[in-house]
Amino acid sequence: MIPSAEINFFGSVIHGIEKVATEQGYNVLIYQSNESEEWERRGVDTFLRSQVDGVLASIAKQTTDTAHWEALQKQGVPIVLFDRVNALLPVPSVSIDDRLGAYRATRHLAEQGYRHIAFIGGQPHVPIWQQRLQGYHDALADCGLKAAAAWVKHGDVSIESGAACMEALLQQKKKPDAVCCVEDFTALGALQVLRANGISVPHEVGLVGFANETFGAHITPSLTSIDQQTIRMGEEAARLFFELSANDRFYGADVRRLVLEPKLIIRESSQRNTI
Amino acid sequence: MIPSAEINFFGSVIHGIEKVATEQGYNVLIYQSNESEEWERRGVDTFLRSQVDGVLASIAKQTTDTAHWEALQKQGVPIVLFDRVNALLPVPSVSIDDRLGAYRATRHLAEQGYRHIAFIGGQPHVPIWQQRLQGYHDALADCGLKAAAAWVKHGDVSIESGAACMEALLQQKKKPDAVCCVEDFTALGALQVLRANGISVPHEVGLVGFANETFGAHITPSLTSIDQQTIRMGEEAARLFFELSANDRFYGADVRRLVLEPKLIIRESSQRNTI
Repeated sequence: MIPSAEINFFGSVIHGIEKVATEQGYNVLIYQSNESEEWERRGVDTFLRSQVDGVLASIAKQTTDTAHWEALQKQGVPIVLFDRVNALLPVPSVSIDDRLGAYRATRHLAEQGYRHIAFIGGQPHVPIWQQRLQGYHDALADCGLKAAAAWVKHGDVSIESGAACMEALLQQKKKPDAVCCVEDFTALGALQVLRANGISVPHEVGLVGFANETFGAHITPSLTSIDQQTIRMGEEAARLFFELSANDRFYGADVRRLVLEPKLIIRESSQRNTI
Repeated sequence: MIPSAEINFFGSVIHGIEKVATEQGYNVLIYQSNESEEWERRGVDTFLRSQVDGVLASIAKQTTDTAHWEALQKQGVPIVLFDRVNALLPVPSVSIDDRLGAYRATRHLAEQGYRHIAFIGGQPHVPIWQQRLQGYHDALADCGLKAAAAWVKHGDVSIESGAACMEALLQQKKKPDAVCCVEDFTALGALQVLRANGISVPHEVGLVGFANETFGAHITPSLTSIDQQTIRMGEEAARLFFELSANDRFYGADVRRLVLEPKLIIRESSQRNTI
């Protein structure tokens, strides 16, 4: 179960899952929740009717009530969560260290000499967006920089919301000279507004995204981002699934949570000093 | 069943399918064949075991033997093909007029004043690639332009093959001044090689893609392409499925084939005269 098949990130995780599942003689059926809690519930029903052996899932952005996941677990259906995990659900999971990813992105901007670093975030209730915001704050504190409250904007993680938040940032009296974005489509929207306003990236404003989507290497300027080791995330989620499935009980006393390390991919959009 | 969830085109078609299926109270399970005939056969088995009500499918590029589709049809399972259809399979289908799409793309290049137009195609056995190549030849003939055999290259429809074919075109004694590509990732690879060689697009070489992938609007220069009406294709495929499912027999004497009209989306990469 993935939020959207149109995001390269999830396509890539699925490749990792399929690789391991195929080795084990299993096939992978995909259901996309379209980021909706209602569709996610329907997907769980559909999987049950299809008599799947288990579910690997990334939770939809709109999901606030996870009762359908708890019910699925109580029925004994094996579940492994990946990327969008939920600390309150006692099921095994594979994710990356989102806090560390945003920490590295923000710290990289500070090391490039940017001093007024803004953050365009996502929906405040989504744990991974919260963790990325925390990483931004931690990096600013470690670098001795101030985080003006007006420089943190929350959007819905899309090109459009990145553009709207960037417009809002440009209307501030004290404008930021760099922006750390919660993911790459948000950064793309911000970049379009900066270019439309004749603001040079990275010379006047530095920009980093998060997720290392394919398009980031091909836009101008190319986008510095955080790689989430997507194929490995899929492989590890599938391996955890088959390893636990080989046990007498899939759900043991301990909950296995694997947290992968994010990698900073430096491209043109953040290199004020060298481009 | 789709070839790949990483191609925006298929993600968008699925949105169209899901919209109509949801209205009818149905859920959509996705299987990706990864462009492999073997995986496609496994996907058919998986769908059968999941007791699906029918299959909407786009055929993998590597598929040359369609016996698994014929067997599925003989079992009475409703099938509607979309985009990559096969004229030899007597099942209903929705596609676009691929010949007309490439015809419009090539003719647009000729109208912009390009005179030496090359074509980077796909695997020669895939019907939609054949039809696009035909559209290229038809447009050149209608415009009174010559198609040098050395200017037609065949790749495997990827960034890498677009780059390799463009390298080969640049090594010709007589170099083309425009390239019509079989799809957008191929065009992206060609663009990277042109830029790496310091060749200005669209001033020295014009470039068009096919499929109108999301990234095309965001690269520099932005990519002229052919829109395939993806969401409408999905909706029409799903409507055809439910309309035929309401009949006594899904497979009647006549085979319903709907062919949609492709639209030319003009961006920077082909506008020598106006940019």
